Amino acid sequence: MTEQPRWIAGVDIGGTNLRVGLVPFDGGVPVAVRQERTIPERGPAHVVARIVDMLRSAVGEVGWGTVAGVGVGCPGPVDRGAGVVLETPNLGWRNVPLRDLIAEATGLPVTLDNDANCAAYGEWWQGAGRGAERLIGLTLGTGIGGGIVLGGEIYHGASDAAGEVGHMSVDFDGRLCACGSRGCVEAYASGPGIAARAVEGLGGAAGSGLAEIARNGSGRVTARRVCEEAAAGDAYAVRILAETGRILAVAVANLINLFNPDVIVIAGGVTAAGDHLFGPLRDEVRRRAFPSAIGACRVVPAQLPDTAGMIGAAGVFKGVVYDGV
Amino acid sequence: MTEQPRWIAGVDIGGTNLRVGLVPFDGGVPVAVRQERTIPERGPAHVVARIVDMLRSAVGEVGWGTVAGVGVGCPGPVDRGAGVVLETPNLGWRNVPLRDLIAEATGLPVTLDNDANCAAYGEWWQGAGRGAERLIGLTLGTGIGGGIVLGGEIYHGASDAAGEVGHMSVDFDGRLCACGSRGCVEAYASGPGIAARAVEGLGGAAGSGLAEIARNGSGRVTARRVCEEAAAGDAYAVRILAETGRILAVAVANLINLFNPDVIVIAGGVTAAGDHLFGPLRDEVRRRAFPSAIGACRVVPAQLPDTAGMIGAAGVFKGVVYDGV
Repeated sequence: MTEQPRWIAGVDIGGTNLRVGLVPFDGGVPVAVRQERTIPERGPAHVVARIVDMLRSAVGEVGWGTVAGVGVGCPGPVDRGAGVVLETPNLGWRNVPLRDLIAEATGLPVTLDNDANCAAYGEWWQGAGRGAERLIGLTLGTGIGGGIVLGGEIYHGASDAAGEVGHMSVDFDGRLCACGSRGCVEAYASGPGIAARAVEGLGGAAGSGLAEIARNGSGRVTARRVCEEAAAGDAYAVRILAETGRILAVAVANLINLFNPDVIVIAGGVTAAGDHLFGPLRDEVRRRAFPSAIGACRVVPAQLPDTAGMIGAAGVFKGVVYDGV
Repeated sequence: MTEQPRWIAGVDIGGTNLRVGLVPFDGGVPVAVRQERTIPERGPAHVVARIVDMLRSAVGEVGWGTVAGVGVGCPGPVDRGAGVVLETPNLGWRNVPLRDLIAEATGLPVTLDNDANCAAYGEWWQGAGRGAERLIGLTLGTGIGGGIVLGGEIYHGASDAAGEVGHMSVDFDGRLCACGSRGCVEAYASGPGIAARAVEGLGGAAGSGLAEIARNGSGRVTARRVCEEAAAGDAYAVRILAETGRILAVAVANLINLFNPDVIVIAGGVTAAGDHLFGPLRDEVRRRAFPSAIGACRVVPAQLPDTAGMIGAAGVFKGVVYDGV
């Protein structure tokens, strides 16, 4: 290895896609980016082998001596100390010693953290919350992931389980969540949550493009379709997104009242809805949180939708091995 | 002043009572404790003058040279840097330069922080959460105050507004809260919230002592009366407390999922209800939060119900002036 490493490899393991890239040691746009479908049903050994192939290919492009190591972000919970992925509902993994598997196969040092933590850290290091003293990141996808960055470090809690923003209940007798609780914001504002609410209301949505999709069988009503129909001016889809924004706002206002953060960064496909989502969200936050805390906090869309995870994972590696980014 | 000060004065300003005591420099049971009714309607100058009298009397008892200074906890929000109480709904104060008023009158250095922060810090320094790396304190009273202690320091947030646990909404279309939002846990589980829910359900509470109180005009239905009737075996009162525990549990589970803390300390008169409150609370937390985070977190009643505020205020002084307790 050269005296001053030039790159850190970042690995972002998602339920749908695997992403690998080489992040400049002091931050910046990743190079040698590789992306593949995850295909979790082939089991962890297969997925790990492909991650190793992607890493070898990417690192080979810049030269092995220039890469300090590998940061990996994986759906959690993870045991960071042991480098083990404890359980991933979306991947079906249990107790996978991911850190050591990748380290042995590549000969590089490896760190492991939760994917939502890495995404939040990426936005803090290089994105929409750059350098904020207190940042909370939400990623709206199949679930709602959360990450908390305080004083430049991911806040992990007592057992690496902190930041489960998606499982904040905002309606104690509300919708049943996959986690077993009721009223979790994830049950309303994740992709499947948005789609379920849209389908449930179709009886009162005559004339909506979403009702048409459901009626003629041309496709499934998904959060993406809700966003597309809203962008095309469909009043029912706009209403679903406004309701999504208002419910998200309850969680955001709770976070503002608890953490009094400098910035809340919201990532995920549904942020493409723009003002259809963020307008009602900001209005409702103003109705709910304390003015002095609202005044201190920006609520913004993510700036690194595809790369925050790998950049953050690389940042975690740098933080652990080099004592901070 | 001697080389090694022996005491720090702690001042706890409540809507009902003023409390002053001298806390041993390295922690312990306060001495020379003074308590008076607050009588906020006489205005801040009158209250401050009596606090100063109480301080002079207490400090005189141990000798002026042995007291390092004064820590003050006051209902917030406060501007710690300026030492100003910005606004206190319960006291009717606005922009009171409390720190300098007390410093000028006593000649002692003074620090100021929010009362709920001080109570949480007192329980962390000397009480039920002694030395925990991550502690959250809730005080159930006229409102629900909250304080967060991370790494031995009060977590204040970007504008000294963090820790408003009472204004976490757990029911987005729920009970209207004094803060203007809906479904805040304070609207259900503060003293007035408990009393209001008890009164609302009296129609179905034939035979309850609470119904009797309401009917014969012998007194008001208060949270204290609910606790007393429950202790005497009144089934309706027991039900109200169980419901209180379950709703509190939603907030506690949210805190566990977000902060993954080592301990949550619950203070306030209603904790006297014991298992009538904590039994349903713990059961419901287990239904809602993630097992690994539950396993890492004790949920316990406060150990310093009357003195946590003054001890914590003194601890804040020590932390600020001596760089940590």
